[in-house]
Amino acid sequence: MNKTPVYNFGAGPAMLPKAVMEQTQAEFLDWHGTGMSVVEMSHRSKHFTSIAEESEADLRELLAVPDNYRVLFLQGGASAQFAMVPLNLLARDGSADYVNSGYWAGKAIKEAKRLANVHIAASSENENFMTLPQDWQISDDAGYVYYTSNETIGGLEFQSVPDTGDIPLVCDMTSNFLSRRVDVSRFGVIFAGAQKNFGPSGIAVVIVREDFIGNARAGIPSLYDYKVHADAGSMSNTPPTFSWYLCGLMFKWIRAQGGVDTMDARSRERSQALYAAIDASDFYNNPVDPAYRSRMNIPFTLPGESLEKTFLAEAKDAGLVTLEGHRSVGGLRASLYNGMPMAGVQALIDFMQDFEKRHG
Amino acid sequence: MNKTPVYNFGAGPAMLPKAVMEQTQAEFLDWHGTGMSVVEMSHRSKHFTSIAEESEADLRELLAVPDNYRVLFLQGGASAQFAMVPLNLLARDGSADYVNSGYWAGKAIKEAKRLANVHIAASSENENFMTLPQDWQISDDAGYVYYTSNETIGGLEFQSVPDTGDIPLVCDMTSNFLSRRVDVSRFGVIFAGAQKNFGPSGIAVVIVREDFIGNARAGIPSLYDYKVHADAGSMSNTPPTFSWYLCGLMFKWIRAQGGVDTMDARSRERSQALYAAIDASDFYNNPVDPAYRSRMNIPFTLPGESLEKTFLAEAKDAGLVTLEGHRSVGGLRASLYNGMPMAGVQALIDFMQDFEKRHG
Repeated sequence: MNKTPVYNFGAGPAMLPKAVMEQTQAEFLDWHGTGMSVVEMSHRSKHFTSIAEESEADLRELLAVPDNYRVLFLQGGASAQFAMVPLNLLARDGSADYVNSGYWAGKAIKEAKRLANVHIAASSENENFMTLPQDWQISDDAGYVYYTSNETIGGLEFQSVPDTGDIPLVCDMTSNFLSRRVDVSRFGVIFAGAQKNFGPSGIAVVIVREDFIGNARAGIPSLYDYKVHADAGSMSNTPPTFSWYLCGLMFKWIRAQGGVDTMDARSRERSQALYAAIDASDFYNNPVDPAYRSRMNIPFTLPGESLEKTFLAEAKDAGLVTLEGHRSVGGLRASLYNGMPMAGVQALIDFMQDFEKRHG
Repeated sequence: MNKTPVYNFGAGPAMLPKAVMEQTQAEFLDWHGTGMSVVEMSHRSKHFTSIAEESEADLRELLAVPDNYRVLFLQGGASAQFAMVPLNLLARDGSADYVNSGYWAGKAIKEAKRLANVHIAASSENENFMTLPQDWQISDDAGYVYYTSNETIGGLEFQSVPDTGDIPLVCDMTSNFLSRRVDVSRFGVIFAGAQKNFGPSGIAVVIVREDFIGNARAGIPSLYDYKVHADAGSMSNTPPTFSWYLCGLMFKWIRAQGGVDTMDARSRERSQALYAAIDASDFYNNPVDPAYRSRMNIPFTLPGESLEKTFLAEAKDAGLVTLEGHRSVGGLRASLYNGMPMAGVQALIDFMQDFEKRHG
């Protein structure tokens, strides 16, 4: 076969490295000579137990997770964490501070407000989320301060961990997890759905400081209690075995590439090349504050919706797919996660320059 | 390759039909010429939307699901439903009747008691769960009557749908779903984790009568509200796409085999052959009331734990794996779900007879 490669710029589920996909396919019918597929194995078998244990060990190594943190592999994605965080960290009359940086912070705030008292410590809503919120007003009685390290729709990213003194941070890292070094000890809870930087959908990683386990409110579903999962090694009920396995392969792949520092360097290379191409042109536009531009998700516009449609159609024919902006905002968007090779970004830039010549 | 085939008798995740596994492998890197894997596709793409829609249509066809029922594909397995059912069907002071038939009914009862008033309408605990509960005492004010159509550990199965008059039935069908015809209109809610009869772990099917949607209690996690999922076509957040896709392939496979009646006939053939072999021997023993023996899970014992260990080791060498009984009860167990071919059962019976000759 000599087909044009397809590069998928979708915001998630997103493309994974070819080597990982090929290994998954190769061992799909017979994992390590067992005669069974990973999808057919008991989660309590020694085979799957080894997959689960290695995946946690590899992840701990990648992020240097301190011993007083538990690593959980859970269903329900980041959206489940929007509720689990207040239900485990706050009493019913407790309150927490949230930083509103856009769509995903907004979703977390909406869910938290149903379950607890929420104080908005900072918001960039008045700036139409074209920059990150400044001048945080942290409450003295906040149980935690919550923020979203990367906004996939706005294309904004925190470039460092905010300082909130003694008040623990909780962070939704779904869209930039394992793409840079992070000091886990600064956080009470870190969580991330897998389907962007490190796996398929159907599983999320939750890293919780031990003292935040065991305080869940009464009367909540058992599966929303961190302690239930921590006590059972994330096997309180049957876990999503295939998704977990594929995350494990991704952790090994990231380690083999050189770890999160390599992922960081590559993400900078990819995103800087695309931003440079956009900024060098009057045809393409990215409106985000340059100080907080995301390495992961790069929204951009063309002069007019009609041209955008033509762009999408021609890009698709060139093997550059899922470049539509989120349905809530329109425009275009290129997501450049760990699975995206530089060749894909270069193909996109070449296409954009050619398209501008023909339509600019 | 001329390897001995491996037959996996595990209670779940369980083996799936070879044809389905081979198709999944064949299209793993490139689904239908898209150049993308299903695991890499946006759940909102037209590709995945077609997978989701076809899977629901096929399932509706298989079970003749009436129009006033919604079909949901959710994360969290049956265990999430143990909480979602009372949280959606009962007010905080409401009550429901539960039938205690063993381990899985017990899990559901334990979770429901945390969230609502539970009345045990019948129990066979005094019979050590060797038979199904008789003489149900249904409360006049029960919001629903809950039962477990198959107990995987005890090896018990309801052979027909109980009659509870006007009070709606709720059923955990995890371990015999799509293995026989069922009149959905008798139920308020049916749910089933996929990892036994129709897919991998990480996804559950929930069939809910429409009037049970939209009544969830306030103050629960959004993802525990049936309405949130029903309104969003089970895509309120990123669904477990690969697991959903594999369920869809299983639905098509079941249809191609002749539907649930064929699954029923095959399950009878498989289980009757194994029960006959056990009953014909004084060496093997199944203690379950013959009126309610499960077609799905067949626990059996040998004379002594030491022989059981030898049996397991020799069976494994013969490619007959995961025959251990549940860690809570010991002994041996053969699970015979839709993915188990008759050849696997025959291989097990042949092995058992040979083992008895050598050790009996």
